[in-house]
Order: sequence, then structure tokens, then C-alpha cells
Amino acid sequence: MPKYVFHYFPIKALGESVRLLLAYGGEGFEDHRIDLDDWPKFKPNTPFGQMPVIEFDGKQYAQSIAIARYLGNKYGLAGDTLEDNLEIDQNVYLINDLRIKAASAHYEKDDVIKEQKYKEFSKGVFPDSLEMLNALFAKNNGHVALGKLTWADFMFAGLFDYLSTMMRMPDLGQKYPALQQVKDRVYSFPKVKAYVDAVPA
Amino acid sequence: MPKYVFHYFPIKALGESVRLLLAYGGEGFEDHRIDLDDWPKFKPNTPFGQMPVIEFDGKQYAQSIAIARYLGNKYGLAGDTLEDNLEIDQNVYLINDLRIKAASAHYEKDDVIKEQKYKEFSKGVFPDSLEMLNALFAKNNGHVALGKLTWADFMFAGLFDYLSTMMRMPDLGQKYPALQQVKDRVYSFPKVKAYVDAVPA
Repeated sequence: MPKYVFHYFPIKALGESVRLLLAYGGEGFEDHRIDLDDWPKFKPNTPFGQMPVIEFDGKQYAQSIAIARYLGNKYGLAGDTLEDNLEIDQNVYLINDLRIKAASAHYEKDDVIKEQKYKEFSKGVFPDSLEMLNALFAKNNGHVALGKLTWADFMFAGLFDYLSTMMRMPDLGQKYPALQQVKDRVYSFPKVKAYVDAVPA
Repeated sequence: MPKYVFHYFPIKALGESVRLLLAYGGEGFEDHRIDLDDWPKFKPNTPFGQMPVIEFDGKQYAQSIAIARYLGNKYGLAGDTLEDNLEIDQNVYLINDLRIKAASAHYEKDDVIKEQKYKEFSKGVFPDSLEMLNALFAKNNGHVALGKLTWADFMFAGLFDYLSTMMRMPDLGQKYPALQQVKDRVYSFPKVKAYVDAVPA
């Protein structure tokens, strides 16, 4: 039996960062993918009626960034000092702010408002945030923080495709090469690659 | 000169949790409150054009939850194990999810959409989240996590008034007594009380 069970929808979205970390850590995990149709049945089994959820040692925990930080600490991907970890967290939240903004457009139910949001964001918060992140990652040698590999790189790499879709920017990596660099480095680890290659289509 | 300078608007909002922690820690801090009118002038001095920002040892850091976690670790308010910290983080993010939802109504610019959101949220996500948090805090003996005082209590206590305003629920504490209990406990510490009593009106 694998050490961890990871419960999430069969998509990347908020789950892929954790999957990449679990693959990198190499302790073994069951990648439990729950179809949207089966979610109502499974929902009462989760601590807060939400996913992703990680399960180990008889306990369940929710919230993707919390889980990613936990695994990052386990796998030697955190900082050496409290100040290092403050920098990691700060940069993770900058990325997360952009995710929240992009999601507010992507998941908008009213089509007119949705297009208004895309119009506004694609001239403002999207390019502004992406310029800032690209400069930040470039300054950190193609990493999210501390100028070296941390769990924040996995967090960003796992969100990359989701961000690209939600911002309607299929050319995200071409436009912002430092973002692409962070993603590519994470996906180049053999254990990560093996997981990605084996993922159901 | 105080150890820390904390830069934020003269409001509670995203800054108060950090101020409460700084007061509790007792190392001394300059509570630098910047009026909205002065913000454009100060903005270029911040690392990412945003506040709150904490400054110490010649460096600046942004992002309120990152700063709160940092101070919590410094002041003995974190967990003893990685699993403890995972639980703290998980519960902090549950609170933060509610804050984001409440903010999406409170800061909506279109008045019609704004009232639609309040109508929808006040029957759904607000009571559902508050029931869940109230049960969670009650289970934790009037704390946010681990059944004891952690930085998550300060994070919640600092957000309490902001949440109450944004959700249009002036009776938040009466309706959900475990939430009130977390807040009251934090505000009962003499150093916290001294800070609160000295805050400019």
C-alpha cells in the first residue's frame, strides 16, 4: 500500500503541484482521480467537503498550498531559515493572487461580465503580474525564490497549464521565458517525468 | 529604533493580524500607517507595489499570511511537527477562502451584481463556511487549530472585524460563539490589549 493517497478531480488545476511533489518525493502515492459525476458520493468522506485532499497515517488534510508546503518541508525543498521560508511563502502568494484573479474571470457564469473581465484583466493585472513574476523568477536564476529549487517551483510548475488556460494565454511560456524555465526544470526530474508519462490521457 | 517597521493603510483589513502578532511578540514595532492619498508616493518603495509590508534587517517582505506565519514561528506559536503545521495551514486557508469570497462581494463595483452576490452568498457560502469554522474552532477548544493557541488564532482574530463588515454581519460573534471565543482570547493578552488601547481612533 502506498504511503499517501491523493484525492482530486482528473485534472491538473489545484492538484497537479501536489502530484508533482509526491512524484519527486518517491515515497509512493495512490493518485485517486474522482470524476465529477462521482464527487457528490465522495464529498461527505472529505474533511471540509472540498478537494484536493491528501490522506496518510489515517488522517486527511485539505488545501493545496498547505499540502505542498508540508511535502516541500519533508523533501528538503524548504528554506534553511525562517526568513528563507518567508521569502518562499511571499512568492507563492504572489502567484496565488494571480491564480485567484484568473479564476474570477474563468469561472464567471455571466458571459457578458466574463468577457468584460477578460478585457480588463488582459490589459492590466495579467500582464502586470506576469512581468513582475518573470522578473522575479529571472532574478532567482529561473526559480521562484531563494535562487534555487524549492517547493515553490513545484507549486508554480503544477499551476502553469491551469494559469495559461484561465488567462487564455496559450503562449504564456514564449512570452515569459523565466516562467517556462521554472516549469521545465521541475518537469525534467526523472521521477517527475515518469509520473507525467504514466498519467492517464 | 524598533526591530520591525510595518507598512499598511490605517485600517485593520489585511494588516491587523500582523499587528496583533507584533504586539504579542513584544520586540517593538513601528506601526507605519499610510493614508490612501499618500499611497501612490509610497508604492514604488514596496517590493511588489502592494501592502502590507514588513521591514527588518534591511529587507522588506510582502503578503500578510506569509508574514503572520513567520512571526508565529518566531514567537512559539507554530506546531511541534510538520503535521501540526499542515493542520494550522489548512485551517488558515479555510478562513482565507471565506475572506476571498466575502471580498468578491464587498469590492464588487457594479451595484446590481454586488447585491446579487450578497443575496446568493448570504444563503450559501457565508452560513455554510461559518457553520463549518464554528464547529472546527469549538472542536479545537476555542482555537483555530491543534486545540491550543497558535498564530492561526491571531490570523483569525485580526480578520474578525473585516470579515464581519465584508459579510454584512455585525452579529457575527453572537451567531457563532466559537469565532468570538478565538477573537476574545487573542485580545485578552496584556501586550495585545495595550496595543489595541493605544491605536489611533
